[in-house]
Amino acid sequence: MIKTLCLIGVGMIGGSLARSLRLSRWCQSIVGIDVSSKAIDEAIALGVIDEGYTTIDQYRHIPDVVVIAVPVMKVHVIFEQIKHWMDQCDAITDVCSTKQSIINDYKNVFPDKGASCFVPGHPIAGRERSGIAAALDDLYQNRRVILTPMENTRQQSLQLISEMWQQAGAHVELLSAEKHDRILAATSHLPHALAFSLVHCLSTQSHTDEIFRYAAGGFADFTRIASSDPTVWREICLANSHELLEALAHFDTSLQKLRDCLAAGDGDALQTIFSEAKDARDRYTDS
Amino acid sequence: MIKTLCLIGVGMIGGSLARSLRLSRWCQSIVGIDVSSKAIDEAIALGVIDEGYTTIDQYRHIPDVVVIAVPVMKVHVIFEQIKHWMDQCDAITDVCSTKQSIINDYKNVFPDKGASCFVPGHPIAGRERSGIAAALDDLYQNRRVILTPMENTRQQSLQLISEMWQQAGAHVELLSAEKHDRILAATSHLPHALAFSLVHCLSTQSHTDEIFRYAAGGFADFTRIASSDPTVWREICLANSHELLEALAHFDTSLQKLRDCLAAGDGDALQTIFSEAKDARDRYTDS
Repeated sequence: MIKTLCLIGVGMIGGSLARSLRLSRWCQSIVGIDVSSKAIDEAIALGVIDEGYTTIDQYRHIPDVVVIAVPVMKVHVIFEQIKHWMDQCDAITDVCSTKQSIINDYKNVFPDKGASCFVPGHPIAGRERSGIAAALDDLYQNRRVILTPMENTRQQSLQLISEMWQQAGAHVELLSAEKHDRILAATSHLPHALAFSLVHCLSTQSHTDEIFRYAAGGFADFTRIASSDPTVWREICLANSHELLEALAHFDTSLQKLRDCLAAGDGDALQTIFSEAKDARDRYTDS
Repeated sequence: MIKTLCLIGVGMIGGSLARSLRLSRWCQSIVGIDVSSKAIDEAIALGVIDEGYTTIDQYRHIPDVVVIAVPVMKVHVIFEQIKHWMDQCDAITDVCSTKQSIINDYKNVFPDKGASCFVPGHPIAGRERSGIAAALDDLYQNRRVILTPMENTRQQSLQLISEMWQQAGAHVELLSAEKHDRILAATSHLPHALAFSLVHCLSTQSHTDEIFRYAAGGFADFTRIASSDPTVWREICLANSHELLEALAHFDTSLQKLRDCLAAGDGDALQTIFSEAKDARDRYTDS
């Protein structure tokens, strides 16, 4: 249990964490910081935070734990703004979908290699809807959270952030930032890129209205992630562009193989691809 | 209301139609034909059909309406086997996902251009699960069914099949077979090809276990259609390979644009693609 949690970025991801920690009574009070006063007002009205400010310097105390829940590209600015907290907080973490870029941002602002309270983190959970009103009590229940501690991350800080996520119902796992970024490029960033690309491709064709008119449930499922926040995803894709381009190149090879099968009318080869894919999905995924 | 409906192919798609028609009491009896005696037994036990046979010639009567619900590539064999019904039934239809290939199959077996009771059809609904046990009463409720009548399709037959689908709760629309195939290539066949390709691509990488371990809900949604029946989809893709290859070429151009943006770090162009995609999806899709 801690005294004060400071949530920087009062949106769906951070708000869901705050909601679950409030339920588990892990923190006595939650202060929210967000450039949007509307988000602050809404979060207070919803009971997600106790108090809120639109700039960090309006908050005059030192929180025990800080959760940075802003889009990837804004994290480095936040690091600058909370420089004075870094030696005084018990732990500072983030929730961004890329980890190497965040660690690079950290190192640019804090080149000192002494022990650090910063614990890079990423909850593997989300919704297409954004904003504090979309925050859920149980978003992290039974979901995985990956922490990618730096060499100089303090053990106590790592333990505290692990405890926080466990209180939110999540399973905490540790990975290197490199591995995290490679895996997430494959399972998250690549599918988002494909879904955005597909819908964009179809929406720029001459018979778009008819195309979407006859789309069935499979299409709605397949393209659901293309309703995600474009700014958030632009930033994630740019921040992890190297790994994403690698994943796209892998995918391109697979797709070319499928096109070759189609062009050659090679049903056996096509069936092999489809069967192996179905087997893998059925083995690993339960929905 | 008709007397006898003959369902050739007693699986999820045909079985769902039979279930809904039984509820609406549109036909007095339903006879099922399936090569699998297990499927027949199960369908009788579930009350989906009244009687069933493993070959068409075991059924000694002439049904009023015939629904061919077998995989695309098997339809031409069925046409051969029901040649003697073609002049005596009120209407014969199919439920296949490609329409030009089915019409070609029809024309090969019935080169006579006189009036025909055959009404090519395609319900835009489905599930990843297959088999008669996966059939649902309400699969077609409020879903679209596309009928693509041939030049020589009888008006009465078209009306009867329209009535059948309306009884199943569906909205019937007419399209040319060419247009149907082009649209479905974009909204159904292409997404399936991409989903199968993506899962296959990830399942053949060295760290497959870890990739799938950290996959979240978005990935499950995106790849759900890759759990579809590989044989069915092999046949659909081959039967509509020309349109699918065209759709893949379009998609490839879109994907290459996205890769160029990523490689150049062009966030504005990336955001334009993502925003336009999100807008299109949110405009056309409600889930």
